[in-house]
Amino acid sequence: MSATTSGSSTPRDQTRVVVEGVSPQVDGGRFAAKGSVGEPFIVEADVFCDGHDRVAAALWVRGPGSTSTTEVPMVEVGNDRHRAQVVPDRLGRWAYTVVGWVDRYETWRQDTLRKVAAAQDVSVDLLVGAGLVADAVTRAQGAESELLANAVGAYERGDVAPLSDDVLAGAMARWADREPVVRHARTLEVVVERERARHSAWYEFFPRSASPDPDRHGTLRDAADRLPYVASMGFDVVYLPPIHPIGTTFRKGPNNSVECAPGDPGSPWGIGGVEGGHTAIHPDLGTFDDFSYFVEEAESHGLEVALDVAFQCSPDHPWVTEHPEWFTHRPDGTIQYAENPPKKYQDIYPINFESEDWEALWDALADVFRFWIDRGVRIFRVDNPHTKPFRFWEWLITEIRAESPGVVFLSEAFTRPKVMYQLAKLGFSQSYTYFTWRPTGPELQEYFTELTSRPVVDFFRPNAWPNTPDILTEQLQDGGRPVFSQRLVLAATLSANYGIYGPAFELVEHTAVRPGSEEYLDSEKYQQRTWDLDADHSLRDLIARVNRIRHDHPALGHDRTLRFHPCDNDQILCYSKTTPEGADPVLVVANTNGEHRQSGWVHLDLDALGLEPGAEFEVRDLLGGASYRWHGPDNYVELDPHGLPAHVFSVGRPDALQPAADAPSPESEDRVPEPEDQT
Amino acid sequence: MSATTSGSSTPRDQTRVVVEGVSPQVDGGRFAAKGSVGEPFIVEADVFCDGHDRVAAALWVRGPGSTSTTEVPMVEVGNDRHRAQVVPDRLGRWAYTVVGWVDRYETWRQDTLRKVAAAQDVSVDLLVGAGLVADAVTRAQGAESELLANAVGAYERGDVAPLSDDVLAGAMARWADREPVVRHARTLEVVVERERARHSAWYEFFPRSASPDPDRHGTLRDAADRLPYVASMGFDVVYLPPIHPIGTTFRKGPNNSVECAPGDPGSPWGIGGVEGGHTAIHPDLGTFDDFSYFVEEAESHGLEVALDVAFQCSPDHPWVTEHPEWFTHRPDGTIQYAENPPKKYQDIYPINFESEDWEALWDALADVFRFWIDRGVRIFRVDNPHTKPFRFWEWLITEIRAESPGVVFLSEAFTRPKVMYQLAKLGFSQSYTYFTWRPTGPELQEYFTELTSRPVVDFFRPNAWPNTPDILTEQLQDGGRPVFSQRLVLAATLSANYGIYGPAFELVEHTAVRPGSEEYLDSEKYQQRTWDLDADHSLRDLIARVNRIRHDHPALGHDRTLRFHPCDNDQILCYSKTTPEGADPVLVVANTNGEHRQSGWVHLDLDALGLEPGAEFEVRDLLGGASYRWHGPDNYVELDPHGLPAHVFSVGRPDALQPAADAPSPESEDRVPEPEDQT
Repeated sequence: MSATTSGSSTPRDQTRVVVEGVSPQVDGGRFAAKGSVGEPFIVEADVFCDGHDRVAAALWVRGPGSTSTTEVPMVEVGNDRHRAQVVPDRLGRWAYTVVGWVDRYETWRQDTLRKVAAAQDVSVDLLVGAGLVADAVTRAQGAESELLANAVGAYERGDVAPLSDDVLAGAMARWADREPVVRHARTLEVVVERERARHSAWYEFFPRSASPDPDRHGTLRDAADRLPYVASMGFDVVYLPPIHPIGTTFRKGPNNSVECAPGDPGSPWGIGGVEGGHTAIHPDLGTFDDFSYFVEEAESHGLEVALDVAFQCSPDHPWVTEHPEWFTHRPDGTIQYAENPPKKYQDIYPINFESEDWEALWDALADVFRFWIDRGVRIFRVDNPHTKPFRFWEWLITEIRAESPGVVFLSEAFTRPKVMYQLAKLGFSQSYTYFTWRPTGPELQEYFTELTSRPVVDFFRPNAWPNTPDILTEQLQDGGRPVFSQRLVLAATLSANYGIYGPAFELVEHTAVRPGSEEYLDSEKYQQRTWDLDADHSLRDLIARVNRIRHDHPALGHDRTLRFHPCDNDQILCYSKTTPEGADPVLVVANTNGEHRQSGWVHLDLDALGLEPGAEFEVRDLLGGASYRWHGPDNYVELDPHGLPAHVFSVGRPDALQPAADAPSPESEDRVPEPEDQT
Repeated sequence: MSATTSGSSTPRDQTRVVVEGVSPQVDGGRFAAKGSVGEPFIVEADVFCDGHDRVAAALWVRGPGSTSTTEVPMVEVGNDRHRAQVVPDRLGRWAYTVVGWVDRYETWRQDTLRKVAAAQDVSVDLLVGAGLVADAVTRAQGAESELLANAVGAYERGDVAPLSDDVLAGAMARWADREPVVRHARTLEVVVERERARHSAWYEFFPRSASPDPDRHGTLRDAADRLPYVASMGFDVVYLPPIHPIGTTFRKGPNNSVECAPGDPGSPWGIGGVEGGHTAIHPDLGTFDDFSYFVEEAESHGLEVALDVAFQCSPDHPWVTEHPEWFTHRPDGTIQYAENPPKKYQDIYPINFESEDWEALWDALADVFRFWIDRGVRIFRVDNPHTKPFRFWEWLITEIRAESPGVVFLSEAFTRPKVMYQLAKLGFSQSYTYFTWRPTGPELQEYFTELTSRPVVDFFRPNAWPNTPDILTEQLQDGGRPVFSQRLVLAATLSANYGIYGPAFELVEHTAVRPGSEEYLDSEKYQQRTWDLDADHSLRDLIARVNRIRHDHPALGHDRTLRFHPCDNDQILCYSKTTPEGADPVLVVANTNGEHRQSGWVHLDLDALGLEPGAEFEVRDLLGGASYRWHGPDNYVELDPHGLPAHVFSVGRPDALQPAADAPSPESEDRVPEPEDQT
């Protein structure tokens, strides 16, 4: 450790400008921020100097693989903060930094204009200005040279007119001496991904349950037949649990039983059998041709396929015999199975990342991704990344992105907050969240405020799931259809990325394996299920409408613009989103109570909705179809859990909103009284 | 600008531990944090690894000039945060960083203990542990080698007893393999100053007004005669405005008049005349011998002398002729005077830091500090540092501190917040604040919360002044003695450093030069004044009592522990401080209304006061003398502006508090009713 030596001569220079507080900046530049193609990337910095001189600031940005730097002038937005934005137009790592300098001409110009306004003699001042402009003439090129030269003459003649010439000021901004330019100490980076990384609706289902015949194992062809159904609900991503061969040693039976009968299919996460490992397909699901067919069919329905990558092995995985050095061996010669003492998971061998052969291991794991990328997969849901080294993921994601910049990685780490955030920082595109365990409005508000505020919003993209095959919350077990509806709308409108595990979700499957457990009874993790997709109680229509709203309203594809609005009833959660430019305001008024009708007054932050104080405006319920005229911030709302779970309002000036094409009539129990003034 | 090249091979390694979020850390380590001798320096960091393994973390710290690094084990305090502290014992720049590693023995030990508790067979596990300990034996020295060797044998024999042996665990913490140790990416620094930088009460006065004869210019000998009076009020620092010769060209007359009569003394900030500049003493004040006498007399009264350093020159300053290149020359050959268009300050020439001779200029300015340091001055109040380059101050303070580590610098920059903070970051020990312009409780609470929270508290030490020769706020002009009393107590208890400009303050001088101005009528800046120090309305006794409380209660010497407690009356501001260790709780209940009696219920954060929920405790008013028994968080308070301005309570268990030696009887209007339970 080196310490500064006392008495050493301190370096000195004449720079005067400070450039600090650059945002976004993840851990002082250790990690890249996140962006997406077409999404405005806004950079801010504190730029100031001593005294009263004016400073100018610029964003320097360089695209991936580019050799030239683009300069974007920054605008002061108050309190010495400067801002500029770029809209990245291609995938990859972009570099950026901020520079600042003393703007001598503008400083002189504003001072001199004030003297002119006070009728002071400025004859000597104009000679100072003439000198500044004359210096710029030596540097200028093209038509502006003449403009500048003329200004020198005018100032020398005592003419004050050029002081007010903004064209001249613009030319001086380009050609005046900037030295010394101060550059922020660090070059920062933003990883630009495709839009799907920022905005997606996921549908997870088990292909083995897609068979129309309850007695036959579902295949990838059966799963392909399910795709029109998934597409009809408006999802973007169809995600399959692992499709690989399943081990037989210590295979688990139904409901996670340690006893397994012949014919029990086992858990898809018990990866690897005599038929192969992470690059094989379970024979009962089909062939690689069937997989290609599934991918193509998905594409034809506007769906992308996401695969599950779970780096763990059943005792029957080929690597156990081919690469025993990739596993931990105990002093008795056995291979260490997974455990969380005193619990044992004898059907799973964890991979030993501290293996001496770790470089070959990492390469093999990266090859698993490459294998499926070669077969058309561009989205991966990574199982339990937090039980593998962070450095591995940072390396892997950087490598894979360098080869295939469009690949999206979803981190399935339900663990401590700092670990989840670390995985996002080092490159995962999206992350599962604690959404499932935030049942109330105040909890959701606190959590999503954290997720959509700095520093988290710069590196963490939430993907909110009301359920997963592992998580059937007590709230869903107890609440039935009203709560399922509410959680769907909350996930889909709070978070730009969300997903459900179906058909369990839309069919309101809500029975736990036992009281106090979040595991499903007869979970598909351990057995094949058959689902009645046409059941009357299906939430299919609601889901389709919500996803349609998400597609029609780009505001819902952004997390950073989320703002909460107070309501005097804390069972009602009120929030809004806009596009980054403030367009397309969408206001959600969500009921979080699954039993009783709730009413209250919301107090809107009109500015966040792009509305003037005291404005009259129209809110059109994209879910319920009704429209209301509201004025001012305080408005009455009422929601019945047995009607619509929420209002999802499009907000605008009266008559500016188009009527919804196929809006249903408002249900009687969803009628909201006309707003009244609160006095 | 260099961007990462896509497709490059990404470096990889097997480190598993993350060390991030190290605090304090000012701008990612660009600047040093602030500390003081004897003050606990607390370092925290997020340290974690993948999976469920336990990590260990340590603070590495190195004192100034030291060649060895001290390791301090860190303790986990929740949410993956680790903490350690050191108490710096000498002045200078200390270096520190945080390291972390996987604690393999502790991970194995806890897992195995859980298996033992579940009555599982651990025979193979014990062999794993034997291997870990055997590895440590190869590294261990001294008596612990044998302890470890015995444990190897015990584990190999299947003995589980050593699992519970914390002495063995301690030895393993010392000798077990830590590799790879992960070190935080940056070595950080803390500048350790003397206690006076952290905790001081300043008294400013004009020596030329210290003459007992109104018709004679006061001298440094007169000023020395004033010292017992200053010391009797309990101040630590006596600060003199500039004592240098004053220019005559464009000299300002009384009340900042541009007309100056013969005999008008001019402003002490118009520095430099035929008699000399920044290293001369005004002849009317006396000689260097008189100055030495003043410094010695101050010391004998427990006072340190602070001088004003104002780097600007009158047109008569010797540098104007000796070093004309250090000033800005206009095209007409004249030297540029100070201006803030359209205002002109023709009596002041700013120094041109963009001079081509800047290195010699900087050396000369540093020599000014060295000159006065050689004459016994260790504290400097720097006038308008924000109008000189930041880099200059960073260089100067670093240089001077390297030569004289005990020198304290106070920044007098009343300007934009980021500029004030920048000056503190680059090294100023203390800074003037916006305290003067925060008249209400809610404003004070918001401002002092910012000042005493991260990141500001790590680099900015507020010095709160109710008045200065430049600032007589409207609140003081209108409020009279009650408001002066309130502002004194607020400054002295909110901020560990505070000061007043006297005798104007204690004599409740409150007439402005004109309505709407914050300038004093007949300001001492432009004329000599005579003060009746024995006036009945003097606040001298109150000030003495407040400074006595500050000396008796170390809690008031710290800013970081400031906590605000809600009161249902926003005219009452309630806050507390403790030592960094949580000792000596002092609770202030301050009235901010200068006209009317105020009462209300305060809701105490008992934990911040070191009290248990529901505790009965005693509050003893160090200012008023009364004691009360309170219990629980909600307590009634009442204050009359014509009685005591505040309660300054010492808080403790009943009977644990010593009675105040000379506490006055509580005034009748300060009686507080017995607290009642709120139901």
